[in-house]
Amino acid sequence: MTTRRSGVRGSRGLRALREAVCAANVALFERGLARFTFGNASAVDRERGLIVIKPSGVPYARLRPAQMVVTTLEGQVVEGSLRPSSDLPTHAALFRAFPALGGVAHTHSLFATAFAQACRGIPCLGTTHADYFHGEVPCTRPLSARAVAGDYELETGLAIIRRFRSLDPMAVPAVLVANHAPITWGATVGDAVDHSAYLEEVASIAYHTLAIAPGVRPIARHVRDKHYLRKHGAQAYYGQKKA
Amino acid sequence: MTTRRSGVRGSRGLRALREAVCAANVALFERGLARFTFGNASAVDRERGLIVIKPSGVPYARLRPAQMVVTTLEGQVVEGSLRPSSDLPTHAALFRAFPALGGVAHTHSLFATAFAQACRGIPCLGTTHADYFHGEVPCTRPLSARAVAGDYELETGLAIIRRFRSLDPMAVPAVLVANHAPITWGATVGDAVDHSAYLEEVASIAYHTLAIAPGVRPIARHVRDKHYLRKHGAQAYYGQKKA
Amino acid sequence: MTTRRSGVRGSRGLRALREAVCAANVALFERGLARFTFGNASAVDRERGLIVIKPSGVPYARLRPAQMVVTTLEGQVVEGSLRPSSDLPTHAALFRAFPALGGVAHTHSLFATAFAQACRGIPCLGTTHADYFHGEVPCTRPLSARAVAGDYELETGLAIIRRFRSLDPMAVPAVLVANHAPITWGATVGDAVDHSAYLEEVASIAYHTLAIAPGVRPIARHVRDKHYLRKHGAQAYYGQKKA
Amino acid sequence: MTTRRSGVRGSRGLRALREAVCAANVALFERGLARFTFGNASAVDRERGLIVIKPSGVPYARLRPAQMVVTTLEGQVVEGSLRPSSDLPTHAALFRAFPALGGVAHTHSLFATAFAQACRGIPCLGTTHADYFHGEVPCTRPLSARAVAGDYELETGLAIIRRFRSLDPMAVPAVLVANHAPITWGATVGDAVDHSAYLEEVASIAYHTLAIAPGVRPIARHVRDKHYLRKHGAQAYYGQKKA
Repeated sequence: MTTRRSGVRGSRGLRALREAVCAANVALFERGLARFTFGNASAVDRERGLIVIKPSGVPYARLRPAQMVVTTLEGQVVEGSLRPSSDLPTHAALFRAFPALGGVAHTHSLFATAFAQACRGIPCLGTTHADYFHGEVPCTRPLSARAVAGDYELETGLAIIRRFRSLDPMAVPAVLVANHAPITWGATVGDAVDHSAYLEEVASIAYHTLAIAPGVRPIARHVRDKHYLRKHGAQAYYGQKKA
Repeated sequence: MTTRRSGVRGSRGLRALREAVCAANVALFERGLARFTFGNASAVDRERGLIVIKPSGVPYARLRPAQMVVTTLEGQVVEGSLRPSSDLPTHAALFRAFPALGGVAHTHSLFATAFAQACRGIPCLGTTHADYFHGEVPCTRPLSARAVAGDYELETGLAIIRRFRSLDPMAVPAVLVANHAPITWGATVGDAVDHSAYLEEVASIAYHTLAIAPGVRPIARHVRDKHYLRKHGAQAYYGQKKA
Repeated sequence: MTTRRSGVRGSRGLRALREAVCAANVALFERGLARFTFGNASAVDRERGLIVIKPSGVPYARLRPAQMVVTTLEGQVVEGSLRPSSDLPTHAALFRAFPALGGVAHTHSLFATAFAQACRGIPCLGTTHADYFHGEVPCTRPLSARAVAGDYELETGLAIIRRFRSLDPMAVPAVLVANHAPITWGATVGDAVDHSAYLEEVASIAYHTLAIAPGVRPIARHVRDKHYLRKHGAQAYYGQKKA
Repeated sequence: MTTRRSGVRGSRGLRALREAVCAANVALFERGLARFTFGNASAVDRERGLIVIKPSGVPYARLRPAQMVVTTLEGQVVEGSLRPSSDLPTHAALFRAFPALGGVAHTHSLFATAFAQACRGIPCLGTTHADYFHGEVPCTRPLSARAVAGDYELETGLAIIRRFRSLDPMAVPAVLVANHAPITWGATVGDAVDHSAYLEEVASIAYHTLAIAPGVRPIARHVRDKHYLRKHGAQAYYGQKKA
């Protein structure tokens, strides 16, 4: 990964995206989803083929839009004097594999991380879950020693992509990375952050449900589909009509 | 459901109720009972036969009394330019079935929702519970695929009404909708919100009690009745005498 | 219980105690130990033989020192136009039985209440507990139907006194009332409130310890005594020397 | 332990350290790691051979740098009119045994204390743990009655040192004292406080992971090493290059 400090073709006009990515990272912190420096968010400019991502290890309180790092979809830095988040190769792999993604967020939020550490997906145990995630939020398979020794952060992305082979990433906009923590995404980086918040809420309710009823089963398909589709389907009737 | 924007007979003079309903919805959010847009509250004007309810999917921070939607007891919108909460048919069914109700509130508060997802009522495990709910807070039976495919939100209301066939809704002003979340009610919409708060507190204490003592039994009837009746019975001696 | 609104002998000069009791009740609320109107605190003036206690059912936010109710040690109101807390007979019984008590506090704090509902004492599982409570915080036996039907709040006090027959109330300044909630006490009403806060902290740590290690045993007597005595014994060396 | 109020050789010029230690103690409180007066932090001036530590039992809100107590590495007070924290002999033993330590912090933070009370180390269950602690955070063996009857706080330090015989204290900058609570350390007193915060976060995630998956195993060595070393090894690539 080489750093070129001078601007390159396509790097101008990213101001709005830099501001959105900075605001999204600050929101991860302010909404209690990322503590310390545990988390990062990025967005993609599909037209220019550029990613904007948080710099590595900078406290949220001091983040400024100008510090956001701009890279190609292959993860080559084209603008910014700071190192990008070490998780950049994971984000970039997701942007390359899932064309509908506009933003990605990564947190270590408590309950979602507990499920990830337990190497267990979050089952769809109620309508709050179905309102946002159309079925279980899956967990990846743990990485082999070889994958970890290689390009670790890229391999993390590939493990997610493998896990979604038969899933629609826009219907289930979240994953748990085994042993690690959740990653969410959406049409925009703001949506990705919202999905991190919904995921944590859903993980918390699932955790407490399992404590009360360890053998509880996922809700029936008809309830799950009803709730997801009344919010997200072509016939959605929740919320207000878009202007 | 048809929307008529012009006022109709009976729709004037609802200003105070619109303000109370708006304040109740904001209170659900500010008291931490409803996060994101997960929750809604409504009130009924028995004289005019009208319901005032939150519009669907509008963030609590931006709610204004003028945005509240006014409908008939059958759920027909008579005033308001926004769509009513998608849960309106549930609220309306409760107002029709239980004449003592003045307000209804629906939240996805953590511990009550966990019991609902576990399809388990909240047993009366202590005096804090008995102070507000005269016995177990029951859970409805899950809806059939047919009921979900039909008029889902109305069927939710009917499932609650069936569950209360031999219960007094004013002595147990709360229910858990299986797989979903709690609904509470009261003589006013403010009481309905208070009951959501008490329910969450009681559900939290029950959750933690069950974790310590999984086989714990409900408290004896004489303690339960004593606590409920010292607050709510004809001989109540808790609090100050009403002027 | 009769109410005499005019002052009686001994009721003057209680201003400082009324202020302390009012502040203690507000502190219960502000420190998160009592929610809604679930809790109360009182103090005794041993010289005058008078108790000062919170009025029943008044929200903490509106409490004023002048609203505090003054009663005899038998619970007869001698000053104040509001009804005293319905738990007054419990407080009064403790003041009569334990001469070292200067204040009593009652809360429904989450973890202590969960132990009370589980009808289980809080075992001394660590030094944080031993720093404040010299051994298990005991739980009373549930009241019989007869005791509940009789003078319920007095019987609650008597059940506590029976439970402390072989315990020093100043070494273990807290109890759990079975099915109900904790009561704490101390040399002053401020100490009683502090003990409510320490009890909740200790109950919370015990709860989480039991979840990790269900079969954990109380700490060894020598550790328990060491911690209690380095803070409270004649040879205490924790904190600063009293002037 | 004797107190000499007049300054001694080496006691001047400690102003910056006194301020750092005072700020660290206040941070323990403000970050929610130490409640009431449960906690303390200290720093060492290796050149002068002096320790600066919190006075015993003084509320965090009133702490002033001038109140910090200065002692020798043997725990003899050389400056300060207040008694040092009763845990001073533990801190001093750690400073003497581990030359890389610049600061020590002790809290009773909830989840770490629950593991300590369960006499159980915190297993490395995920990458959040491995980012800060290179393997399990160990728990000491309980002290014998003889050790407790002797120089208790010194014996606590010796038990920690024994537990670290084959561990690198800078790679695992934390320990759980059996039956008691956690102690953390670092190159500076600020790092020691940060480690207390990371430890509590890691303990909380481990607690919740164990609740979901009681039989979960520590993460594979290759994942653990990867995460620790990408942040702390010679080849670390997380965060920004040091100037």
